[in-house]
Amino acid sequence: MVKNAVGREIPERIEGIGDLKPYCGPFEYNPLGRKIGPKLSKILPGKSKILNNIKEAIIETGLKDGMTISFHHHLRNGDYVVNMVMDVIADMGIKDIVVATSSLTNAHQELLRHIKNGVVRRIETSGMRGKLGEEVSNGLMDVPIIIRSHGGRARAIESGEVSIDVAFLAVPSCDEYGNANGFSGNSICGSLGYAKVDAKYADKVVLITDNLVEYPNVPASISQADVDYVIKVDSIGDSNGIMSGATRFTSNPRELLIAKRVARLIEVSGYFEDGFSMQTGSGGASLAVTRFIKDKMIEKGIKASFGLGGITQQFVQLHEEGLIKKLFDTQSFDLTAANSVGKNTNHIEIDASLYANPHNKGCIVNKLDFVILSALEIDLDFNVNVITGSDGVIRGASGGHSDTAAGAKMSVVVAPLVRGRIPSIVERVNTIVTPGSTVDVVVTDRGIAVNPLRKDLIDRFKAAKIDICSIEELKEKAYKLTGTPDPIEYTDKIVGLVQYRDGTIIDVIRQVK
Amino acid sequence: MVKNAVGREIPERIEGIGDLKPYCGPFEYNPLGRKIGPKLSKILPGKSKILNNIKEAIIETGLKDGMTISFHHHLRNGDYVVNMVMDVIADMGIKDIVVATSSLTNAHQELLRHIKNGVVRRIETSGMRGKLGEEVSNGLMDVPIIIRSHGGRARAIESGEVSIDVAFLAVPSCDEYGNANGFSGNSICGSLGYAKVDAKYADKVVLITDNLVEYPNVPASISQADVDYVIKVDSIGDSNGIMSGATRFTSNPRELLIAKRVARLIEVSGYFEDGFSMQTGSGGASLAVTRFIKDKMIEKGIKASFGLGGITQQFVQLHEEGLIKKLFDTQSFDLTAANSVGKNTNHIEIDASLYANPHNKGCIVNKLDFVILSALEIDLDFNVNVITGSDGVIRGASGGHSDTAAGAKMSVVVAPLVRGRIPSIVERVNTIVTPGSTVDVVVTDRGIAVNPLRKDLIDRFKAAKIDICSIEELKEKAYKLTGTPDPIEYTDKIVGLVQYRDGTIIDVIRQVK
Repeated sequence: MVKNAVGREIPERIEGIGDLKPYCGPFEYNPLGRKIGPKLSKILPGKSKILNNIKEAIIETGLKDGMTISFHHHLRNGDYVVNMVMDVIADMGIKDIVVATSSLTNAHQELLRHIKNGVVRRIETSGMRGKLGEEVSNGLMDVPIIIRSHGGRARAIESGEVSIDVAFLAVPSCDEYGNANGFSGNSICGSLGYAKVDAKYADKVVLITDNLVEYPNVPASISQADVDYVIKVDSIGDSNGIMSGATRFTSNPRELLIAKRVARLIEVSGYFEDGFSMQTGSGGASLAVTRFIKDKMIEKGIKASFGLGGITQQFVQLHEEGLIKKLFDTQSFDLTAANSVGKNTNHIEIDASLYANPHNKGCIVNKLDFVILSALEIDLDFNVNVITGSDGVIRGASGGHSDTAAGAKMSVVVAPLVRGRIPSIVERVNTIVTPGSTVDVVVTDRGIAVNPLRKDLIDRFKAAKIDICSIEELKEKAYKLTGTPDPIEYTDKIVGLVQYRDGTIIDVIRQVK
Repeated sequence: MVKNAVGREIPERIEGIGDLKPYCGPFEYNPLGRKIGPKLSKILPGKSKILNNIKEAIIETGLKDGMTISFHHHLRNGDYVVNMVMDVIADMGIKDIVVATSSLTNAHQELLRHIKNGVVRRIETSGMRGKLGEEVSNGLMDVPIIIRSHGGRARAIESGEVSIDVAFLAVPSCDEYGNANGFSGNSICGSLGYAKVDAKYADKVVLITDNLVEYPNVPASISQADVDYVIKVDSIGDSNGIMSGATRFTSNPRELLIAKRVARLIEVSGYFEDGFSMQTGSGGASLAVTRFIKDKMIEKGIKASFGLGGITQQFVQLHEEGLIKKLFDTQSFDLTAANSVGKNTNHIEIDASLYANPHNKGCIVNKLDFVILSALEIDLDFNVNVITGSDGVIRGASGGHSDTAAGAKMSVVVAPLVRGRIPSIVERVNTIVTPGSTVDVVVTDRGIAVNPLRKDLIDRFKAAKIDICSIEELKEKAYKLTGTPDPIEYTDKIVGLVQYRDGTIIDVIRQVK
C-alpha cells in the first residue's frame, strides 16, 4: 500500500489487473510512449459485412474465453444490446469475459447472472447502479471493477491500457458497410461520442442496428473504415430510456435555489464575458442553472461560444435562439438533443477523447470556463464523491466529473446540504472521484464555500457581496441537522478501483459489511 | 533483383530506404500487425498553442537533421507553405531532411535548391513535375524518391512505414487551439483530405494559417486534439492555383469524343442503375464524362448514390441538382468544389485513408462502380503509366489512379491514341503505376479495347453493338501513325521507386541518359 496525493492507501498491485500507479495530482502524471494502433486489415471490394445474427458475429470475430468486449451506454436505461449480446455469449459457453463499457445503467442488471455464472470475470465502467452495484459492493466479484471517467476511458483505450478485442456497438442507423449514426431511426440516442472511440480502436467492431439504410449513410458518426461486421436486429432499445432521473427538468424549489445561486456566482466570477463557455452535468440543480444563466446573458447582451456535455433540451434551445454558438455533444441527455445533433450543423458530435482525454493534444474541457456538477458527498478538502452512497454502496457514475473539474476555469459543485438524514458535506468522502484541488466552489441550499486555493474567486464574490462561508461551516451546519454520520463498516476486500482521468488510482472501494 | 508479378525487376534492398517487397498482385499482400499510434501528449488547460513564426515552431518541435517532415498539396500550384518552411529549415542549417508530402506541383521547384544544398535528402510524394522531375530523373538525388498513391500514402502513414516527425500543414482557417478547415478564408483549398492523415499521425503537428478565427472553429477538418502549434502568416497561398491544367473543363473535340464513348460504355455496362457511383480522375476527357453521363441519368430516370474524388464543379452541380446524392471529397479540384464542401451538408470531406487505404476495414473506392482515369501510356497488358513521360522523365503523379482502378467495378482508362508523335498505347509502358489486372477498359479516340479478363463486359458491349478491338490493334494503329518509338536510354541508377497501394514495389524509375 502507498498513500496517494489525496491521502488514500492504494495497493501497488491487484491480482488480475496488474500494477497500479497512485494518484499524484491532477496534472502531474506524464504519459510516455504512443497510442496503440488498431489492427491492420484488408477488406476486398465486394465483400459483404452483413452477418445474420450475434452468434455469427461472435464466431467471425473469434471471441474467446478471457477476451475483452465493449459496449456503449448511449441508450442508457433503454438499452437492449448489452443483454442481447451477453445472453448469446453465455449460451455459447464463453467464460471469463472482461466487459469494458462506457457505463452501466439499470437496464444492465442482467449482468449479475453472467457474473455469477462465470461468463463475466471483470467489469470496467464509468459507474453502476441498482442491484448490480449493491452485489458488487457486497463482494460478488473476485477482481475489483475499474471505474473510469469518460475522458479517462478514452485515454485508456487510446493508450492501449484497455485493449478491446470485440466492440459490440448499438447504432440507431447504419448502412451495410458500417457507416452509422445515432440520430436517425426508431431508437435514436443522439451522439455516439463514447462509441466512436471503441470503433476507432477495437480489434473487431460489430455494429448492431435495427435500422439498415441505403449506402452511403453519411455524414457518419462511425465510419465504414473502422467496422468489421453489421447485424440487423428487431430493436436495439427504447429511445425514451435515454432521459433518466439524472437528466430531468427540475421543479424542486431547493434545486432551483441552488441553481439561482450558481448563476449569480457565474455572473460575478470575471469569466462571464462574451464568448464564455459552459457545461452542466446531470442532476436537477446543475441542469437548471442554464435557465437562470440565459436571463443574465440577455441582460448583459453576451453570447456563449460553446456549450459542452451532456447536451440537454435547454442547451439546444439556447443554441437555436442564437445564445450559444456551438454545442459539443459527447452524449445526448434527452430526445430534443438527440434529434438536434442530426439537424443543427453547429451542434457537433464529439468523441470522448476530444471531449476530455487528458493525453491528447488538447481536449475541449481545457477550454471550459464554467462547469456545474452534482455530488453525493463533498469533504473538507473539497474532494467529491459521485460513486458510492452514504452506505458505501456503488450507486453512481464517474462520468465527466473529474474531467471537467480539472479543465474548467471555475468548477462548481452543487448539492443540497442534506438529503433526508444524510449530510452532503462530510469530513471525509467515502470515495474520492474528483480531487478537491480541481473543485473551486461548493454551492448548497444553505451556503456557499469557495476553495481557499481560489483566492481570486473569493475576492470577486466578496466584492459582489455574496455570502461565503468555509467548507467546515457547511459541514457543521449539515451535521447539526443530521448528527455525525456513523462510519461505514468495510471489510478489507477491494471491490472497486477508482481511476483518475490520467490512469492513476485516486481511491479504492471496499466491500461493505 | 527479383521479378515482381508484373515482370519488373525489383531490388531487394535500397541503401537509405531499406528492404523492398516486390508487388505480388493487387490484393495478394496481407498486412500484419497494428497501425502506429501517435505520441501520447499532455497539454494543460490555459496553455497557448500560438507561436510567432515558423522558426519558433521548428525549435519547439525539436526538428533535427535527418528527420521526416510532411506537407499537403491541397493548394497545388498556389501553395506558398512548402517553400516558406523549407527556406527557414535551410536558414537554420538543418540538413538531410526527408520530405514526405502528399504531392509536389510546379509551385515546389524551389526544392531543387534545398536538395542541392543537402537540406533535403529524400522525397516521398505522389508525383512531381517540371524542372524538379527532370533533375531527379537525371540522377540528382543519392537515394531514390518514393512514389505513392493517395491511398498508399495513407496506408504508409497509418502503418508507421512513414513516420512523420513534424507535419507543417497549411490551413485556410484555424482557431488558436488548432481547429481548422479548408473552406473559409482568403486562401481556400476545400477538402483537407490528405492533411487529415498527417494531422492524426505525425509526432508534432504545426498548422500554418493566414486566417486566425474565433474559437471554436468547428465543424473542423483538423481537430485541436491533434495539433501542437498554430502559426499565423501573411498568406498560405493563392486559391486560384488549385485549378490546374489537369482539372480544366475541356472543349477539345477529341477529348469530348472519348468522353462520349465512355458514357455510352457506362450506360450499357450493367452497373448503370439507380444508386450507382462514380469517380472521374483529372484530365479533360475524364472530367468531361460527367457531362454526358448527366444526360443519360436524366433519360433513364436514375440518380447516383455518390460521387468520389477529386470533386469538380460538374459534380457539385449534379449534386445540387439532386442527381448525385452524396459527394465524397478527398481533394477539391476547383473553387466551386472548395466552396461547396463547406456549404453542402452532403458534400463530405473524407481523409485519404477512408478514400483509398487498402489496409483499413473498407475504403470508399471499394464501393465504386465506375472510375474514369487518364493515362500517359497503356501497354499490351493494360498496365498504365501516369508518372514518366515518353522520354522517361518524371512528369506526373500516381494520385488515386491505382487505388480507384483496384476498387471500382469498372475502371476505364482514357487517352488519345497518339499525342503529337507519341503513341499512348505501347508495347510496354515505361513505368507501371497501375497494374493491368485492375484496368478493365481502354478508350481512345480511335478505338476501344477491353481487358480479356472482363469477358462479362466484352459480352455486354458486343450486345450493345459497340465496336471493340484488341489492345494490340490499338497499339498497331498508334505505331502506324507514330512509328515504333525509340527505346529510352537509362543508366542503371534507380532514381525512383513506385510503390503499389499495398506497400509493395510495382516498378522502379531509372536515371535517363
